[in-house]
Order: sequence, then structure tokens, then C-alpha cells
Amino acid sequence: MKRYNVAILGATGAVGREMLKVLEEIDFPLASLTLLASKNSVGKSLFYKGKQIKVREATHDAFKGIDIVLGASGNAVAKEFARDIVGSGALFIDNSSAFRMDKDVPLVIPEINPFDIKGHHGIISNPNCSTIITLLAVYPLFRLSPIKAMIASTYQAVSGAGAKGPIELEREMKEEIEGKEHVPEVFLYPIVSNLIPHIGSFDEEGYTSEENKMQNEGRKILHCPELKVTCTCVRVPVKRSHCISVTVLTEKPLSLEEVREAMESQEGLRLYDDISKNEYPMPLITSDQDLVYVGRIRKDRVFDNGISLWCSGDQVRKGAATNAVMIAMKWVEINA
Amino acid sequence: MKRYNVAILGATGAVGREMLKVLEEIDFPLASLTLLASKNSVGKSLFYKGKQIKVREATHDAFKGIDIVLGASGNAVAKEFARDIVGSGALFIDNSSAFRMDKDVPLVIPEINPFDIKGHHGIISNPNCSTIITLLAVYPLFRLSPIKAMIASTYQAVSGAGAKGPIELEREMKEEIEGKEHVPEVFLYPIVSNLIPHIGSFDEEGYTSEENKMQNEGRKILHCPELKVTCTCVRVPVKRSHCISVTVLTEKPLSLEEVREAMESQEGLRLYDDISKNEYPMPLITSDQDLVYVGRIRKDRVFDNGISLWCSGDQVRKGAATNAVMIAMKWVEINA
Repeated sequence: MKRYNVAILGATGAVGREMLKVLEEIDFPLASLTLLASKNSVGKSLFYKGKQIKVREATHDAFKGIDIVLGASGNAVAKEFARDIVGSGALFIDNSSAFRMDKDVPLVIPEINPFDIKGHHGIISNPNCSTIITLLAVYPLFRLSPIKAMIASTYQAVSGAGAKGPIELEREMKEEIEGKEHVPEVFLYPIVSNLIPHIGSFDEEGYTSEENKMQNEGRKILHCPELKVTCTCVRVPVKRSHCISVTVLTEKPLSLEEVREAMESQEGLRLYDDISKNEYPMPLITSDQDLVYVGRIRKDRVFDNGISLWCSGDQVRKGAATNAVMIAMKWVEINA
Repeated sequence: MKRYNVAILGATGAVGREMLKVLEEIDFPLASLTLLASKNSVGKSLFYKGKQIKVREATHDAFKGIDIVLGASGNAVAKEFARDIVGSGALFIDNSSAFRMDKDVPLVIPEINPFDIKGHHGIISNPNCSTIITLLAVYPLFRLSPIKAMIASTYQAVSGAGAKGPIELEREMKEEIEGKEHVPEVFLYPIVSNLIPHIGSFDEEGYTSEENKMQNEGRKILHCPELKVTCTCVRVPVKRSHCISVTVLTEKPLSLEEVREAMESQEGLRLYDDISKNEYPMPLITSDQDLVYVGRIRKDRVFDNGISLWCSGDQVRKGAATNAVMIAMKWVEINA
């Protein structure tokens, strides 16, 4: 079997560390593994299969000889190094939003549009976390009928803001118990016992960048340029796993039976919907694993051809690290 | 000014205690105040304007001479005593859901349908907490155009489950910090760092009793028997104040300007929607006061005639105690 020289760019962040874990868990065919981060992280080391690997500085010539770069950085760093990565001949699978909407860049959920991988020109983008989780839950409906619209409200965990999110929440929990005041650093407001309906930046229509992603990325991934999505994104005091309440408007009427059947056969998705046993997706059960859970499936009351559902998934794993590694695996399969 | 003999039934619970506070704050014209609760609470006492009042047992003959009974109990207790209360000639303003959908019983949000008070036959019901908060935020749109449908996802605080809710959340926060296991008592699952998409009991269509209330009670309060509401109710790890993400479908197209104007003039509502200053409703700022806050107002992307918004209100106050006391005040005005 062919083996690959892989680098993680932004290896010390929440997503980078999770990529390392996922590579190990699935036993990715590695020839070598390079961990890259900013100057500040040089000196740190991380473990892969019990072996210590030193973090190296991400410089413009750090990508020579690399086959695949898994990008776990923010937009600025991704933009800074994209040309170097592609120039060195490596495939850049980027988790930032820097290139997601570029025409030349496939935006891929491997269970949905693996065929788009072939069209890459050196960069493949990993979609937004809430988008991945929602689309995986909704995709079985799409297999049965074109989808016209979705109305989604998200419940997003603090780890979506990086490794510092859960640290801030835990610190605020302690302060809450001790009756101390909160001085938020990661979020604009205290998040313990609070809800913040603002993730990203606002556009002129009053939508946030995070809310726009579900429509824009959904259209690209599903190849549905007409798809309409209203989304409200909310940060909640949960450490890990995003949840989304979604109403889906389909072109054809769908029975709950065929919807459930399609969901049961969907790779990457677990139908978890037995209300007689109080079984429904919750962060409590969907964290630290790779499946998206879907439940609370019912006929919508507003749309004649509508289905409402509730889904939950670990946004650091399937919403980021796992999806990126799965893109790499699919690319390996295609190249094999 | 005429003064009234008022009793609180279920005075020692979260809503009962808040009713006592609200009566004091607005200086309700009291002739006497009687605090009633179950046998277990006899011996306790509560304070009204610095004066200690002993809690008495709620018995069938406890309502003689009372003019207004504010009901802060569950359905079973409300049903047990309704006949006695009405038989004694008192007005029963009940916060339970026992009588809300009865034809003879007005269901009232004083800022929306005060005129329904006159039609009472001894009982007036206080609507569900999420319904009150949502409808107050949506009512300005209704004043501009008939409303055809709403799609709502709720973010409901633990205090909605009574005084034990916040105690359980705080206990679980401590356990979380200490790395201890949780043994939930109030909720079906741990609520700290979790989301539970299940409040009330499930019907055959897969909706919960809590979710059905927004459609059923909304139809009755707005006198719109055709109103369609899809609702998803979720318990979140927040101590106080419910939030709701709502998309409203109106018959006529509405401009954001006229919507904002109508909201600004709406009694009981505060338009809090300056995204340039990161101002939007949050539990952090809407708790322990009586206004419903509304923000994140924008044109919906799915419905041509749609408005999306985010609202937040203290469900123990405006969602329960304050609304009940305001019904009593309106009744006093009508009777004066």
C-alpha cells in the first residue's frame, strides 16, 4: 500500500490535536507525519502512536516533500501558506473558511459529494461544522426528493471557538458557584448560564457569517444553487457537540417511513429516534465519536411537504477533524 | 380605592414566590394576603413588605372570603381546588395548563387580549411561558398583518421546571468541575453541558405537550384558529430566561422599518436589536425583570413574507408570575 507524507498545519489547536487522534485511530497510511504551528508552539510536542513528535514552525518552505497538508488553522494562516503548499505539490485539505466558496476548490462531505474531490486544483475545503452536521442529517431526504428550503436554529458548543472555549466555560462555572463576576475573554459575553445569538460577523441583512455558511455551503455541496436557508446560530453553554433544530421543505411529499429508512441506510448517520424510550440526540451521547445522530423526526406543521428533525454531532470530530481526514482517505482511494 | 383579598395557591414554589414579589413591587391593592400550599409547607413563612406571613394548608374550605386566587400549582392541585375557588365566589387566575384550552376559560396575555378577561366564568388561565414570550415578540407583526404560520425553536431555562431546576444545574456544575458523575433527579438526563430536546410528554405525531402549546394557545390568544406552528422545545443549561428563535410567515409583506416601529410601540416588549453594538437579547440581561426583549430581526430567506427574530424573557416573571398578576390588575381595572 502506498504511504503518504502528511503534515498538520495548526497542529496544537483543538482541531489539529483531534486530526492527530483521528489519523491514529483509522491507522492512516503514513510515510511521515509533520506537525506545524506558529513560532509560539515550537518546543511543544505531541504524541502519535506513543511516539513523541516535535512541533515545527510553519514557514514558507516547510511543505517540501509533503503529500497531504491537513489545515487546522484560521483563515489568515491558511491564506498565508496555501500557495506554498500547492506549489510544493501537496494537496491542501483546509478546515478554514478561506477557500470554501472558491470555484476551483471542491467543498466536500465524503458521504455526500466524494465525486467533487477529483476536481481539485490543489485545495479541497472542509465545510463549516454546523453545515456538515445538518447536511448529513438532511441528506437522506435529499436522496428521496429535491430540497427547496431549510429553516435551522443551531445550539453550538463552546469548543467550536477553539480549545479556549471549554476552558472559559469551566472557569465561569467555578465563578458561578463561588458567586464571582465573569470577565469573558473568548466570547463577547459570559457564556455560563447564558445564550449568545451571535457567531462570526454581521452582514448588511443582519445575518452572521456563521449563518450564511449553511445556505452558501449547502448550495455548493448539494449542487443546489437555488436552495434557500434561514439559519440562526446560537452559542450555548455546552462543551462539545453542536445540535441543530431543522425544518426541511422538500419538493415531493415524503412519508416518515421512507425518511427513516433512508436515514438508517445513510453512511455516517445514526437514526436515534425512539421517543418511547426517551431516545433522541444530545451532546451527552454524541461527543467524542464520529457519527451524526438524528432524531425527533416528525411531519412539519407549517409546510405540507415538510419534515422537522433534531440532530447532534461532535463538531471537533465529524464537524472538522474527522471530515478532513475522511477527505484525505477518499483522495487516497481515488489515487490508489 | 377598592382593596382585594388575594390568595396564592402553591405559594412556596418558584412561581408562587415570584407572584409574592410582583404583588409587592407593583403595590397591588390588597385587603389581605393568604399563602396556601400543601401540608408539607405548613409551618414555613414568607415575607410581604417585611411582614412575615405563615403558609396555610390548601384545603377545600380555604377560599372563603377570597376575591382573587393566583394559582401557582401544577395541574392536579389546580383541578382539585378549582370548584372550591369558583364556588366561593373568587376569581381563579391559574398558571397551570389544566384549563387553558377550555372554551369557558379565557387565556390571556394582558398586552394582547385583555378584552377576553370579561368572558370568564370564574377561571382565567395564564398561558405557557414560551408562548407568552414568543407571542409578545410576534404580536407587533400581527398588528400589521395576519400571521399564517410560525416555526419556533426554544432554548428553555432549567427554572422552567420549578425551583429544583437551578439547584440541579448548580449541583451538576460542581460535579462537572470535580469530575464526578451526575445522577439527575429533576431532568431525565444531566443538563450541565447538555441539551435535552424533550419537555413534557410525546403525542402520536412525535410532538411534545410543550411544543403543542405554542400552536394551540397561540390560536386561542390571537383568535386565529388556522394558525400553524411548528415548535421544537429544548431544555438548555441556563438558570433563568427562555429564548426562542422564530420565523414568522405573514399574509402581507412587511418592511423591517414598520416591524421595528411596531415593536418599539409594543407595551411589554423592548426592541433590543443594535448589532453594530453587539446588542441582542440574552438570558444574561433579560432575567429578573418583566420585559420581553426582541432582536436579531431580519427578513427571512425562505418565506417571501417572512420575518425571523430572536426573543428572550424571564419565564418565571413575564412567562408566569407577572403575567398572572397583570391579569389580576386588568380585572381590577375592569371591575373598578
